Amino acid sequence: MLPILLLCFLLPSSHAADFCVADLMGSLTPSGYQCKVESAVTTDDFVFTGLGVVGNTSNIIKAAVTPAFAAQFPGVNGLGISAARLDLAAGGVIPLHTHPAASELLVVTKGIIVAGFISSANTVYYMTLHKGETMVFPQGLLHFQVNGGGTPAVAIVSFSSPSPGLQITSFALFANNLPSALVEKVTFLDDAEVKKLKKVLGGTG
Amino acid sequence: MLPILLLCFLLPSSHAADFCVADLMGSLTPSGYQCKVESAVTTDDFVFTGLGVVGNTSNIIKAAVTPAFAAQFPGVNGLGISAARLDLAAGGVIPLHTHPAASELLVVTKGIIVAGFISSANTVYYMTLHKGETMVFPQGLLHFQVNGGGTPAVAIVSFSSPSPGLQITSFALFANNLPSALVEKVTFLDDAEVKKLKKVLGGTG
Amino acid sequence: MLPILLLCFLLPSSHAADFCVADLMGSLTPSGYQCKVESAVTTDDFVFTGLGVVGNTSNIIKAAVTPAFAAQFPGVNGLGISAARLDLAAGGVIPLHTHPAASELLVVTKGIIVAGFISSANTVYYMTLHKGETMVFPQGLLHFQVNGGGTPAVAIVSFSSPSPGLQITSFALFANNLPSALVEKVTFLDDAEVKKLKKVLGGTG
Amino acid sequence: MLPILLLCFLLPSSHAADFCVADLMGSLTPSGYQCKVESAVTTDDFVFTGLGVVGNTSNIIKAAVTPAFAAQFPGVNGLGISAARLDLAAGGVIPLHTHPAASELLVVTKGIIVAGFISSANTVYYMTLHKGETMVFPQGLLHFQVNGGGTPAVAIVSFSSPSPGLQITSFALFANNLPSALVEKVTFLDDAEVKKLKKVLGGTG
Amino acid sequence: MLPILLLCFLLPSSHAADFCVADLMGSLTPSGYQCKVESAVTTDDFVFTGLGVVGNTSNIIKAAVTPAFAAQFPGVNGLGISAARLDLAAGGVIPLHTHPAASELLVVTKGIIVAGFISSANTVYYMTLHKGETMVFPQGLLHFQVNGGGTPAVAIVSFSSPSPGLQITSFALFANNLPSALVEKVTFLDDAEVKKLKKVLGGTG
Amino acid sequence: MLPILLLCFLLPSSHAADFCVADLMGSLTPSGYQCKVESAVTTDDFVFTGLGVVGNTSNIIKAAVTPAFAAQFPGVNGLGISAARLDLAAGGVIPLHTHPAASELLVVTKGIIVAGFISSANTVYYMTLHKGETMVFPQGLLHFQVNGGGTPAVAIVSFSSPSPGLQITSFALFANNLPSALVEKVTFLDDAEVKKLKKVLGGTG
Repeated sequence: MLPILLLCFLLPSSHAADFCVADLMGSLTPSGYQCKVESAVTTDDFVFTGLGVVGNTSNIIKAAVTPAFAAQFPGVNGLGISAARLDLAAGGVIPLHTHPAASELLVVTKGIIVAGFISSANTVYYMTLHKGETMVFPQGLLHFQVNGGGTPAVAIVSFSSPSPGLQITSFALFANNLPSALVEKVTFLDDAEVKKLKKVLGGTG
Repeated sequence: MLPILLLCFLLPSSHAADFCVADLMGSLTPSGYQCKVESAVTTDDFVFTGLGVVGNTSNIIKAAVTPAFAAQFPGVNGLGISAARLDLAAGGVIPLHTHPAASELLVVTKGIIVAGFISSANTVYYMTLHKGETMVFPQGLLHFQVNGGGTPAVAIVSFSSPSPGLQITSFALFANNLPSALVEKVTFLDDAEVKKLKKVLGGTG
Repeated sequence: MLPILLLCFLLPSSHAADFCVADLMGSLTPSGYQCKVESAVTTDDFVFTGLGVVGNTSNIIKAAVTPAFAAQFPGVNGLGISAARLDLAAGGVIPLHTHPAASELLVVTKGIIVAGFISSANTVYYMTLHKGETMVFPQGLLHFQVNGGGTPAVAIVSFSSPSPGLQITSFALFANNLPSALVEKVTFLDDAEVKKLKKVLGGTG
Repeated sequence: MLPILLLCFLLPSSHAADFCVADLMGSLTPSGYQCKVESAVTTDDFVFTGLGVVGNTSNIIKAAVTPAFAAQFPGVNGLGISAARLDLAAGGVIPLHTHPAASELLVVTKGIIVAGFISSANTVYYMTLHKGETMVFPQGLLHFQVNGGGTPAVAIVSFSSPSPGLQITSFALFANNLPSALVEKVTFLDDAEVKKLKKVLGGTG
Repeated sequence: MLPILLLCFLLPSSHAADFCVADLMGSLTPSGYQCKVESAVTTDDFVFTGLGVVGNTSNIIKAAVTPAFAAQFPGVNGLGISAARLDLAAGGVIPLHTHPAASELLVVTKGIIVAGFISSANTVYYMTLHKGETMVFPQGLLHFQVNGGGTPAVAIVSFSSPSPGLQITSFALFANNLPSALVEKVTFLDDAEVKKLKKVLGGTG
Repeated sequence: MLPILLLCFLLPSSHAADFCVADLMGSLTPSGYQCKVESAVTTDDFVFTGLGVVGNTSNIIKAAVTPAFAAQFPGVNGLGISAARLDLAAGGVIPLHTHPAASELLVVTKGIIVAGFISSANTVYYMTLHKGETMVFPQGLLHFQVNGGGTPAVAIVSFSSPSPGLQITSFALFANNLPSALVEKVTFLDDAEVKKLKKVLGGTG
């Protein structure tokens, strides 16, 4: 009996579509990274340990985002899912932001988080969430997470894309060289405010 | 010879997937509106005349958006495309905004428009566009259009979704009851600025 | 100044595509449940509290799955994501299973879990995971989770679909009326084993 | 022991996404027909017997198409696949046509068939196929099948959509009331030819 | 304060999915062209000037199509949208054609255009369109555009795909080496007509 | 007149999206194989002859699967469809299996086949199928095919993906090095049975 041969006979090269672990040195396409050769794939490609590590919140927002997107976690490439860890020290804030290409699902694993999103109709949906509570933020809409207690809070978030992107509104406005006059025109903010925030967040112009 | 019968024989009920004109009174699903019965569909369902009408720019932004989304133009339902007309009077501005579920392609048909978008890496891509010039804004990213000349400008824009949505950042922040303290926390804006803009744009709290 | 009217002018019915909260009493379609009318949507639709509740593991597998799929958590309908909580008492097992329509991403939030999956090439990828460690299981492939320590373990899992399905292999084989002779033919299991497991899991025939 | 209860506990309403058998009396959406209630689904919904029946080729094209699309075979609704049977008597022809929303894969099960398609670059790809030979026709491209022998031929074709549609070019041109002058303009055909074929295929104008 | 470092910390490699500008020298995949390295991307990649240029209509159809597809406009790669300009001199015709992989939305920007499409049920939907009027042509269906006035007409069209393809029916039939006998069989056209049009359009055989 | 030039003018590089024949030596991506250069594509790329060849059923399952997936049939790459031939000698069995990424449609072309699938709700749908009868197996669900007569049976199956994968449950469990103790835990099978089948199917551990 030659069962190995049998398997080969039954399954000639048919398993190519099971997964596509990202070859981060290879080319990028609209559907994600090029696949690593299957013979080089190991269990480690499907495991990510970074979400167990406390993020460094010694910064201006007293918060940290630890992504497990395809660029950090090659195993999720092509699978329509990814994750991240949010750390919010007391007073911590994940500023208003969007994920251009994904919906987000948040589960609080420690502390209290006030989270919310705003719809195209400008309606606000927000709530104070405790440990174990879950909130979903529909694709592309502005949302935020704020520490709602006096102690550190943590959340695990997952995304409906392996590369959801992350655009923080105030960084998009004030952390680059978009001319202040243009920022003011498209936001209604006044000149002093724009210039102050450009200074704080590193923008010029 | 009975060609009509022949056709029926060859094509029994096989044309259901050609299109799905929105029945706006019917149910809405994740894939779009319920389809109108095919026998009730007419050419008018596939034609929209609103983009030929000058928008009313007598308003705070000296600009107007005339959408031809599935809700206004039932023929595009399910077809992965829609359109809109932008009118920008001298000094007119389409404020910073995103389309949560679509990429946008703009063609200037009159005047001069300064248009741009900001990437997740906070890089700004913007340019002064003249008649006939085209710019594409990738899905979900912040972008804007500003009249770049002293005369009225017009653009025809199209979207990669029949219902792209439209979230104007400053309206999302200042035109609802999201508490000012929360707005300030998630944007770094100061209290006076937030309260001033809430007053201008109709927000409370 | 009439900002409310301004908003209506700028955004006539354009926000339909932001989200599609499931109307669980409405019709089901290939893309998910019919949407609840937007005016009836509240923040509660986007929040799920069940993942914070310890599952009841007093059962044959010493484990519990608490789903937050569209049927339990209407807010995820149409958004390409959902979640679940796994509770594994000491000795607990989530038996070999697949999700026919989704990839899964697991984060251990308590205890130790041995998790793994098997590819179409019959290669096994498995590992012992500790708190904070993450593993991804590609769509449609057989996988399992087993408590790897002597104390209760918990994981939060998310899926790349709002309705991922859950097919537990041994229940599919032994918990229904599929004739034993047929089960034996398609699995190579012997008659005694099949009949024993049918008894344990509630099957007949 | 209460295994049935166990199953209910483990699987509360989680199986909604397995399939969506078409409720042909229900509403149609861009993603397909509304689903039949799962409790009313039987094995018969997933079985179609029509492809075993010889098509009636006593017609102008000496050929017949027997579709197993969602409208005839409700089980394929939402599953991204469907099928049809082609019967070609000696001299039989499936005229030049497209499927607007699907690729097609043909397997000859009897006789000889000359099949081909034309690319956007106007390159022709065609071949004489014998029993067991397979050809694929990419989505939306013009293709045809002609009996290539002196005896009846049969093919089983499948499609990458449950509702692929079927647009036969000559019927689209000559079997309706599209004015002859317009037909001539957009095809370069001469007036006599257009009018002759309108007569043959049942068109007016 | 080191805001730049802060940004790097918050956004490590997470912006890969914003866009995928085509590297036209790179490999092509089912999802589109390989992406240009992000550091080499400039605003010019997202801007296309060709739609502002009058097409050369000194040809057999007195018309011109100026495409802004991914191959000409790399910025649209992967974004689900593209565009083109149609120029129709007096008497000009865009012959009957399909886009195998996209729906099309047309906006008349000058003159009068008679446009229409034919459904799988052989129903014709056509109308005379004036400046500013819009018509949508569902994916894969035969459609046409004809100058409806005595002066030049222009339309901007957009597509639900970055590479919609373009198959002109008469060119597919008469501008290649598909044997005349086969053309006649699959279209019902007579031999003289086929041979005449092969001569006009450059076909052989 | 220069019709060839005319075509070039009308169709500059616009046909890239018609098809994407797999370059099996090129890179693999989440959307499939890299495309072969269009000038190297021939009709042979779209034709597969293997489904006409009787499979070798002299093996443990008295059955054979002959795949025509993208890896064997490069023309289907990117087209959302593929096929296979099933040969079942008298007593032959295609063991319980899933296709992780595709629905399957089976047409019996010879003999009698008992086929069925099991839903997430553990309901069994199975039937005895005769020549010409068709059954559909929804994506990712366990299914099987067994010769239901005393003579050889053949089926042509097609899939809603060019690379559907194929995971045979008993091979996944018993044909690799997954430790017996783990197999037993996740399946409820007893130790003797697991070890016996590991021996038969080539597994270790």
